[in-house]
Amino acid sequence: MRELPGVVSIREVGPRDGLQNEEPIPTEAKVRLLDALSRTGVRRIEAVSFVHPKAIPQMADADEVWQRATKVDGVRYSALVPNTRGAQRALAAGFTEIEVVVSASDTHNRRNVNRSTAESLDDIAELIDMLHGAGAQAEVIIATSFGCPYEGDIDPTRVAAIVERVVADGADRVAFGDTTGMGTPRRVRDLLTAVRDRNADIPVLLHFHNTRGTALANLLTALEFGVTEFDASVGGLGGCPYAPGASGNLATEEAVHMLHDMGIDTGIDLDALIDAAKLAEDLTARRLPSGVLRAGPRTALTPLP
Amino acid sequence: MRELPGVVSIREVGPRDGLQNEEPIPTEAKVRLLDALSRTGVRRIEAVSFVHPKAIPQMADADEVWQRATKVDGVRYSALVPNTRGAQRALAAGFTEIEVVVSASDTHNRRNVNRSTAESLDDIAELIDMLHGAGAQAEVIIATSFGCPYEGDIDPTRVAAIVERVVADGADRVAFGDTTGMGTPRRVRDLLTAVRDRNADIPVLLHFHNTRGTALANLLTALEFGVTEFDASVGGLGGCPYAPGASGNLATEEAVHMLHDMGIDTGIDLDALIDAAKLAEDLTARRLPSGVLRAGPRTALTPLP
Repeated sequence: MRELPGVVSIREVGPRDGLQNEEPIPTEAKVRLLDALSRTGVRRIEAVSFVHPKAIPQMADADEVWQRATKVDGVRYSALVPNTRGAQRALAAGFTEIEVVVSASDTHNRRNVNRSTAESLDDIAELIDMLHGAGAQAEVIIATSFGCPYEGDIDPTRVAAIVERVVADGADRVAFGDTTGMGTPRRVRDLLTAVRDRNADIPVLLHFHNTRGTALANLLTALEFGVTEFDASVGGLGGCPYAPGASGNLATEEAVHMLHDMGIDTGIDLDALIDAAKLAEDLTARRLPSGVLRAGPRTALTPLP
Repeated sequence: MRELPGVVSIREVGPRDGLQNEEPIPTEAKVRLLDALSRTGVRRIEAVSFVHPKAIPQMADADEVWQRATKVDGVRYSALVPNTRGAQRALAAGFTEIEVVVSASDTHNRRNVNRSTAESLDDIAELIDMLHGAGAQAEVIIATSFGCPYEGDIDPTRVAAIVERVVADGADRVAFGDTTGMGTPRRVRDLLTAVRDRNADIPVLLHFHNTRGTALANLLTALEFGVTEFDASVGGLGGCPYAPGASGNLATEEAVHMLHDMGIDTGIDLDALIDAAKLAEDLTARRLPSGVLRAGPRTALTPLP
């Protein structure tokens, strides 16, 4: 094993990416989950998205959730927006870290927003300018970075070219989304190599799904490449709509559990995180896919009779 | 990523380790599963165990299952035995690859067989002689190699000393069992380093559980150490009795899916294996934990409407 980073920064995405892909829950429940997560020691939380309520009813109360949530010092909160209107709402709500999405797959991008990848990149260039003008940072999330459910493999050089483009347009960071869990250690290696070959000088964040069991193997591979920023979702919140019953997002507590055992600091209190995962399970009334939530950490011993 | 092996040998343990930890199913069903697996291209199958029917009713019909199963050329079948009586039955049934178990944790070993690890090792030395005398090979499985649910961490040098002992006693191969899913990449690295430091010259096989989501990350770590033999269980058959609902064995199709995408050959037809996993799910009438069974391989694209 290569020398691995000593510290990893986890962004908790359960309140947004997780809940957006679950049955809607009440505003009060969203605030409770957000507040519980803010007290785990996690330093970054994707709190809400500002999207059209008809498109995503799960986020219709984003303004109210955010207003009522307790903002904890030292935690960076971010919001996702699909367009200028969403960006205006996010800025008005006080967010200074804002995410926008484009899909590396043209087909996937057209299915999502009825525009080509190139057209969306033009929109994003304008959004970045607008956000910077308002004093906010802009992160570009590149969906289907490790494969597209319609097109199959996505050429890593295509993804790297998108990175180059958004860097030129002033993006502050870039995230690679494994939208439908097609990532494997090989795909992670190929993508990170392609990005590195372009010398793209920008912070990189990886967002894995555990659809096919590879999330932690992918994370381990990325660590070996020196990546230190990862998304994860408490309890594994966020199903995989196209494959009912499949697990979606990497569970935060599974990531933290493995990282801590490897001596890698996250700043997160694993016990508090597991409590938040239990709360997420109660609030969604759904059995969440996290193994560490089910079995507890490896340090939780079985008492002898 | 370091240079990884080009070929990996998977031993399918669903028919024995898997079914032994599920509700009993009919003899006919066991034969069907075994036959389906024999046709996947897998080259090693742990077929049955010869144990006392009162202790493990799931294996009470081991002789009949084995008699009725179609033995496929090129597939190596093995059986697990707990003692001399079991070994006699396995030899009489025609097995030439036989596994015996000892736990690295003294507490775990006493709870299992009411003997200390050292006492069991003495028994195993005699068993190895007996098996060799009958022309069979003996594999020693070291349970709780990555941690014990009662004792916690197991010192890797203790496990390495057990390896040294069984090598001296003539064991033909050794397997490290992650009995309750306490393995992480760090534990795999520590154990394999300790074993290598002893210069134990013996084939090594790793047996991971996915209880806490780490199975494929562990496998990846072991590959980087040059390990090329792994157990896995079709569909992830084999629950985790002490933690109801938790996933147990690493699913064979999740391992094969990741390995093949990394360009590592297993000789297994992934589609045939997924069909066998579907059969396992039907026969056990239980939703199995395998992601690749649920979602299909990453190459299975979603048709556009």
